[in-house]
Amino acid sequence: MKSQPITIKDIARILGISPSTVSRALKDHPDISPKTKQLVQTFAEKVNYRPNALALSLRSSKTNTIGIVIPEIVHHFFSTVISGIEDVAYGRGYNAIICQTNENYQREVIDLQALVDNRVDGILISMSKNTHEFAHFENLKENGVPVVFFDRICEQISSDRVIADDFEGARIATRHLIDKGCKKIMHLAAPQHLLIGKNRKEGYCSALKEHKLSCDDRLIVKCDTRETVFARADDIIRLAPEVDGIFAVNDSTAIAAMQVLQRNGYSIPKDIAVVGFGDGPNANIAYPPLTTVEQKGYDIGQAAMRLLIGHIENNVEEEEYETKIFTPELVERASSQLGTEY
Amino acid sequence: MKSQPITIKDIARILGISPSTVSRALKDHPDISPKTKQLVQTFAEKVNYRPNALALSLRSSKTNTIGIVIPEIVHHFFSTVISGIEDVAYGRGYNAIICQTNENYQREVIDLQALVDNRVDGILISMSKNTHEFAHFENLKENGVPVVFFDRICEQISSDRVIADDFEGARIATRHLIDKGCKKIMHLAAPQHLLIGKNRKEGYCSALKEHKLSCDDRLIVKCDTRETVFARADDIIRLAPEVDGIFAVNDSTAIAAMQVLQRNGYSIPKDIAVVGFGDGPNANIAYPPLTTVEQKGYDIGQAAMRLLIGHIENNVEEEEYETKIFTPELVERASSQLGTEY
Repeated sequence: MKSQPITIKDIARILGISPSTVSRALKDHPDISPKTKQLVQTFAEKVNYRPNALALSLRSSKTNTIGIVIPEIVHHFFSTVISGIEDVAYGRGYNAIICQTNENYQREVIDLQALVDNRVDGILISMSKNTHEFAHFENLKENGVPVVFFDRICEQISSDRVIADDFEGARIATRHLIDKGCKKIMHLAAPQHLLIGKNRKEGYCSALKEHKLSCDDRLIVKCDTRETVFARADDIIRLAPEVDGIFAVNDSTAIAAMQVLQRNGYSIPKDIAVVGFGDGPNANIAYPPLTTVEQKGYDIGQAAMRLLIGHIENNVEEEEYETKIFTPELVERASSQLGTEY
Repeated sequence: MKSQPITIKDIARILGISPSTVSRALKDHPDISPKTKQLVQTFAEKVNYRPNALALSLRSSKTNTIGIVIPEIVHHFFSTVISGIEDVAYGRGYNAIICQTNENYQREVIDLQALVDNRVDGILISMSKNTHEFAHFENLKENGVPVVFFDRICEQISSDRVIADDFEGARIATRHLIDKGCKKIMHLAAPQHLLIGKNRKEGYCSALKEHKLSCDDRLIVKCDTRETVFARADDIIRLAPEVDGIFAVNDSTAIAAMQVLQRNGYSIPKDIAVVGFGDGPNANIAYPPLTTVEQKGYDIGQAAMRLLIGHIENNVEEEEYETKIFTPELVERASSQLGTEY
């Protein structure tokens, strides 16, 4: 069990002086004699006295701690965002605490409440997939806690937003396959009720139409994880003889699809060129190494933290909201070199 | 800027009743009339009243929040440990907040202080590589905050500990190569001042000696990341003609070594069998899929959280410390099937 921490009153009682003398001695107040200051400060150090965090925050209205709420910490994209956030935060004297919702709405509510109870100065959020009610976000605003959404934004809440341009990223990836000579490109897609699923599919279609290729629903297979690729392996193999390119909604889906095709006698990229989305560490490990688009998670994290600091420190007008958009960049590797042996 | 949150006194003033009536109405006290209760509760909801977290914690001595301090959240092992911690924590009504030290001693000190200031009920720590002073850990004990170390334990502090048996894991991995027919096994090793580097190398040597094979320093190459494998590629290639097996200190080192060997004309596992350590998601993506040992991060997280709850809730005697050890398990895949084509 935790023991009660020592307070200014305890120190005053033990040393036989008044609490206000102790308080002023600890703050190096000029009215207190050097001798008393030394006594109080040495004693406070000895008994491990810590100013009460809440009392400090009530005085200064600041804890210099910000909260990060994300769906999954193991995800490469989110971990790069966190690095970007932390680098800006530390440089400006803020500490960061992280809560993981595991894509669970209830946990998101609890995590936000815990952060408010701990009086963080502001919160950076990427919304969970299962969040369809937004009162917990409204509450933050009503409590005056600055909030910036990144990546998985909440369209129903006005706030600063930092996002990756999924539509443009998918268009860049699909255009690259067309440039490499692909004429018929399969898309491995995420569920269309998710914004990233919808935007990446639309970017794919847009690139096809630009080049007078048709966007054929028959060539779109719904799978967005390693497991769902294996579950839909038959559909992928059935379409394989007629396609020469695959654009997958993320890297792990692209890599699993390459493995399914290779086991069925296809050579990548000789027979079919493949492009992913995300540029996680797996892209380099894949066989062949995977061409993909990089989402600039680090830049997104930095931008989100800078916007948050603007609200915390500069008293930015409440309704002055900004949206920053980062366009992914192509990272070209072996998997998309159609017609070549690896 | 944050506005001051509304207090019980504010509600009392606005409604024209006493603070103690407000307080008891909020707690559903039988002495308060249903009408007053409804008035107070409806009003409190409307103005978003939240009981002050610190005040609550001073009363109950509990915040039901625990802190997790880890070197790197992106690391697969730590993310599985966190899942294990969270599953036990949530089941017992605790919330978890995570701090990442980025292997930096200064951040570890700041993170621990922030958690103490936020009055977490207990802390789970895996120490940073650069921590060589331990006063911040001693302080936790002096403040009566229960602590459990996991994986990267602090030998200088008496506490509960939950660890993976790296020595035994390495012995299992090396024995497996010997069982597959390897006679001369290279080891890709981590720095020997790190406990995991030392223990895994010693496990490797122990397995060799068990089978009357010599543990030859010449066959130990110091590299423990993808980057250092590429930097020491010449040394690996120079030794390759005389070895038939490789045991690498972690999966990414094993996978990078396979790529270096393949680019130099070696066939894995036909010419050289390879085993890693860790069983992260990369092991399945590697070409060929990597045989490795699984570290049981999830079980380690669960065990650590259960020990912590013991100290938080059951008033376990301060000096009653336990150490729990988890032995890794072999996960056999294609990369270690010496002599076979993949």
